[in-house]
Amino acid sequence: MRIGMIGLGRMGANMVRRLIKAGHECVAYDPKADAVQAVAGYGALGVNSLADLARALKPPRAVWVMVPAAIVDSVIQQLRPHLAGGDVLIDGGNSNYQDDIRRADELKGAGIHYLDIGTSGGVLGFEDGYCLMIGGDKAAVDLVEPVLASLAPGGKLPARGAGAAGTSAAASMGYLHCGPAGAGHFVKMVHNGIEYGVMAAYAEGLNLLAHANAGAQQATADAETAPLRDPRHYQYPLDVAAITEVWRHGSIISSRLLDLTAAALARDGKLAAFAGRVSDSGEGRWTVQAAIDVGVPAPVLSAALYSRFESRGNAEFANKVLSAMRLGFGGHLEKKSS
Amino acid sequence: MRIGMIGLGRMGANMVRRLIKAGHECVAYDPKADAVQAVAGYGALGVNSLADLARALKPPRAVWVMVPAAIVDSVIQQLRPHLAGGDVLIDGGNSNYQDDIRRADELKGAGIHYLDIGTSGGVLGFEDGYCLMIGGDKAAVDLVEPVLASLAPGGKLPARGAGAAGTSAAASMGYLHCGPAGAGHFVKMVHNGIEYGVMAAYAEGLNLLAHANAGAQQATADAETAPLRDPRHYQYPLDVAAITEVWRHGSIISSRLLDLTAAALARDGKLAAFAGRVSDSGEGRWTVQAAIDVGVPAPVLSAALYSRFESRGNAEFANKVLSAMRLGFGGHLEKKSS
Amino acid sequence: MRIGMIGLGRMGANMVRRLIKAGHECVAYDPKADAVQAVAGYGALGVNSLADLARALKPPRAVWVMVPAAIVDSVIQQLRPHLAGGDVLIDGGNSNYQDDIRRADELKGAGIHYLDIGTSGGVLGFEDGYCLMIGGDKAAVDLVEPVLASLAPGGKLPARGAGAAGTSAAASMGYLHCGPAGAGHFVKMVHNGIEYGVMAAYAEGLNLLAHANAGAQQATADAETAPLRDPRHYQYPLDVAAITEVWRHGSIISSRLLDLTAAALARDGKLAAFAGRVSDSGEGRWTVQAAIDVGVPAPVLSAALYSRFESRGNAEFANKVLSAMRLGFGGHLEKKSS
Amino acid sequence: MRIGMIGLGRMGANMVRRLIKAGHECVAYDPKADAVQAVAGYGALGVNSLADLARALKPPRAVWVMVPAAIVDSVIQQLRPHLAGGDVLIDGGNSNYQDDIRRADELKGAGIHYLDIGTSGGVLGFEDGYCLMIGGDKAAVDLVEPVLASLAPGGKLPARGAGAAGTSAAASMGYLHCGPAGAGHFVKMVHNGIEYGVMAAYAEGLNLLAHANAGAQQATADAETAPLRDPRHYQYPLDVAAITEVWRHGSIISSRLLDLTAAALARDGKLAAFAGRVSDSGEGRWTVQAAIDVGVPAPVLSAALYSRFESRGNAEFANKVLSAMRLGFGGHLEKKSS
Repeated sequence: MRIGMIGLGRMGANMVRRLIKAGHECVAYDPKADAVQAVAGYGALGVNSLADLARALKPPRAVWVMVPAAIVDSVIQQLRPHLAGGDVLIDGGNSNYQDDIRRADELKGAGIHYLDIGTSGGVLGFEDGYCLMIGGDKAAVDLVEPVLASLAPGGKLPARGAGAAGTSAAASMGYLHCGPAGAGHFVKMVHNGIEYGVMAAYAEGLNLLAHANAGAQQATADAETAPLRDPRHYQYPLDVAAITEVWRHGSIISSRLLDLTAAALARDGKLAAFAGRVSDSGEGRWTVQAAIDVGVPAPVLSAALYSRFESRGNAEFANKVLSAMRLGFGGHLEKKSS
Repeated sequence: MRIGMIGLGRMGANMVRRLIKAGHECVAYDPKADAVQAVAGYGALGVNSLADLARALKPPRAVWVMVPAAIVDSVIQQLRPHLAGGDVLIDGGNSNYQDDIRRADELKGAGIHYLDIGTSGGVLGFEDGYCLMIGGDKAAVDLVEPVLASLAPGGKLPARGAGAAGTSAAASMGYLHCGPAGAGHFVKMVHNGIEYGVMAAYAEGLNLLAHANAGAQQATADAETAPLRDPRHYQYPLDVAAITEVWRHGSIISSRLLDLTAAALARDGKLAAFAGRVSDSGEGRWTVQAAIDVGVPAPVLSAALYSRFESRGNAEFANKVLSAMRLGFGGHLEKKSS
Repeated sequence: MRIGMIGLGRMGANMVRRLIKAGHECVAYDPKADAVQAVAGYGALGVNSLADLARALKPPRAVWVMVPAAIVDSVIQQLRPHLAGGDVLIDGGNSNYQDDIRRADELKGAGIHYLDIGTSGGVLGFEDGYCLMIGGDKAAVDLVEPVLASLAPGGKLPARGAGAAGTSAAASMGYLHCGPAGAGHFVKMVHNGIEYGVMAAYAEGLNLLAHANAGAQQATADAETAPLRDPRHYQYPLDVAAITEVWRHGSIISSRLLDLTAAALARDGKLAAFAGRVSDSGEGRWTVQAAIDVGVPAPVLSAALYSRFESRGNAEFANKVLSAMRLGFGGHLEKKSS
Repeated sequence: MRIGMIGLGRMGANMVRRLIKAGHECVAYDPKADAVQAVAGYGALGVNSLADLARALKPPRAVWVMVPAAIVDSVIQQLRPHLAGGDVLIDGGNSNYQDDIRRADELKGAGIHYLDIGTSGGVLGFEDGYCLMIGGDKAAVDLVEPVLASLAPGGKLPARGAGAAGTSAAASMGYLHCGPAGAGHFVKMVHNGIEYGVMAAYAEGLNLLAHANAGAQQATADAETAPLRDPRHYQYPLDVAAITEVWRHGSIISSRLLDLTAAALARDGKLAAFAGRVSDSGEGRWTVQAAIDVGVPAPVLSAALYSRFESRGNAEFANKVLSAMRLGFGGHLEKKSS
């Protein structure tokens, strides 16, 4: 089928390529002309404006918006005059699902279907396919299902009935109609929240492995430093890269994130290229806030999120308060960095 | 090669079968006669005593002990009179690595090599192979490497030099000589600590998904219950089973543990067969305690561990203290279970 | 001065009594007639309607609303027709500060001042005074400062200049003008967030003390239970009540919450009257969500919040997921409750 | 009574002064001659060796050792030849309680009583008295009770029967015989664990207050930074010093640690003198490890401990792992420090 793609960054461009490879026609727009040219080189029909994009699609149009969450609303505002009742507008980025609920509501008046599609797969998605979590009206999902099936790893549209988007057969292909407006990004949000937790679990474990030789590096004891109770228990200069590699083969914790970690450590076991300032892009925060809204505990997901905040120095004043208290009750002066 | 196996429970019996399938000879012992008979049915040489087991092996003997951590010491004590200098004694269970350091030391006097081999793979290991993390002397590791290579997923012994146990080639086969005595169980301990964290990340996320319809089930508001600020944001009766299935296809969080979770939810999306009392078998505890010993933060791994403690009711007195305080300062009476 | 009080529950009634004792005149309203009668017995002027309340006050009126957060908006809606420009409307309850921002904005059009006053002190406040955290216009704060000074522990209005509400002199009396609309409840929110954390710190420590005799009560070992590595280290049947008492005298952790805890434990060292289902009333949640909004780590405050969620059984599905995984990879059956 | 004091640092010297003020006789030793001279100036009998110290005391001797935990064993070793059966040796420092169990056992053979006395009060103890948590034989506790009563805030020995060290009357004076060897330091360990949690609760809350103006300082949005969903909610340039001051008056979270915090913030609201590298001296670690040993959750105490580890940069490799993963799956480059 024919579909429009707005936003040709890392994700959008790769999705266009994957769709074309699967036999679909893509009308592609990006404010950056060279981004448009690049996908035109893969066979997309590049256009220079949202008006041109709309004109190049036949009603009911399907338009996939793949831009940073912060600018989705302004893109929709610019695009909307060019859309008509029956068209399907997809936000495939990382919007907050509460924005989806509002947008779907606003567009409903004009008869425009809004789909929120959480998309996982990252830079590996072009080759391996994308996992798609979809929220919105069933009719609109049906309309774009050929595209969904091609983007997903399953690769081809299952027979009708067997694989409609809301069923487990479709889930096994890599796409799922999760529920009404917002459900797709809600599920993607939780997906990313879990991702934070899984990543942090590995990171903490590997950090411990990297310190397993602490007993051989014991510093001088003083009242401000808790000494190792038995330095003989920490005499292991471990090969963290090899350990992540061996875990990939037969262990219970093998996973795609472990694969990526092992690959990174194989390149540099010290990860010296990184400073350890870890960004977060919203979903982890929203996951924890949602858990709190409904009153379910999320200690692991929260701890993972906070580690990122801390990695960026955001606990600084809290730590100063602690040092000030310690000076106050115990006369403890801060130790200098060793 | 020929090897002795002591302990024919779920793990031990499957390992015997996998070894025999790979062409090795196994001398098998368990205090339960029917367990011995069972593996004899697969081609093992069943024996009725540790003395018989030792006799059936040629020096230098290789004996793999696969029993609960709590009884490893008593098995070693009984076995030791039947071993001689040059023999290799393997603890493949879940011992604390500090016990390995002690045992290796004790056995060294008699010239007996002690290997601690952390073994991951569980009930899937017979088919898929086991991931092996090895601690001890290199000479002893070399001696048993044919067995290691067969237990591991790689399935066959790599060419000498290319795949010796301490190299990344061996790691890619699924076994790794991690370091001296205790290193194998240390790495396995951290492996399991990570496993706790990864499991909890999924569990927390899925719990949130299972509560995504809370806004439709809003109870009466009172001063003792924080109401949802906007119930319209939580109106999703999600299909958690289908969601775990779709995540297996193309998403960044696909993993072996997710596969298991999706399979369990496919059988029963409510998991009604489970009470939610989650055991822990030691490694998660030791991982956190080790992290604290060397002073590295492990908030995710700790939170995962504590969730298990809490699931078993171990926070009860703490919670009573909180309720008593709330009554004290605010006159708040405990709400009854709803 | 003369002030109106709406809401004569535990908090509101005690505040009326404290104000009357300090020489102020209180016009008091509550939908429950007996609550009105009760404070009339202490010298308040009881009224039967909001209209009567407004009539009994001279412009510019000062009206203190002390009702559950969930009904503040409806009380304001009913009260507003009876107020005029220049009047001061105070929300002294536990509103979300974001509601304060909205309300102040809505009332500004009619020239009505809105003050949000976070009030701490609970059932002890009548005797000891209340700690008041105030948000809103300075002019309005000035107008009601005599009442603030009487409610606060300081007890009397400081000399003008020395003790205006936004200064540290006023802070030392127990009331503080923290900033514009919402600032009072923002600071109160964080106050309660801290309260959750402090309470949980004591609760966790006392729970550990209550288990210090675990080594004398060691159960049978099996593969599903991590045994104590050295039961001799946990042979202390401690007197938790006496310990909280001794900590009140000279220790660094003496505090008002510890006083309450010691008192509760002195009555019953087992706290058998409590089930340990711990409510939360919103501020703890909002504190954590605000911390996440601005990107500062709040691991302790979050953990305290989650303990309450868990105490009410909200982790149940997560725990079932964990048990299902353990069965999946290890064949582990759940242990029955012991 | 007459007592020996070994170790005249901040704590030991102040305790000597408090004891002398209460009418006791102190024989004081420290390897640093000027430390000995200083307390001699307050009326202590300064000595130059452990032998002299022992000679200056009449059997049964009472000797209080107040030195860093790391050197207690060597001090005991040097002191022991000078002690005799019936003497009481007190470790008043911050030893691990498991060392107490061992030491009491070792000294019992020679008939020497060993008391472990956890001592809280810090630099404020000289004025306010010390809170004493005592482990060991009752007979030995009885022998030194006059000293205990003077060090504690209560200040004078209660009448026999009414206030023996193991009773709640003594607890109300500020000292308590908690149980057999190790019980004193066990209770002190938990005390400090709680202290970590309480401190962190305040620190996290104050950090949030310090960021309450984030909405006015909003940076440019990009895909690597989660933007504030509503910057209008974070427009409060709060006076954190004044807030901690007001909380001291009538609020539920007033406490001794809050007093210290308010005092520090009154001196400098930015705490610019501190770098925020927070030490930990052992008890917080041991508390968490003990909680894990007995299987009780301690999420708050753990989070408080980990914050300190993180403040010292110990999460660095973990954070690098996270950044490496993010690059791997999403092509995300680390943001530079802003």
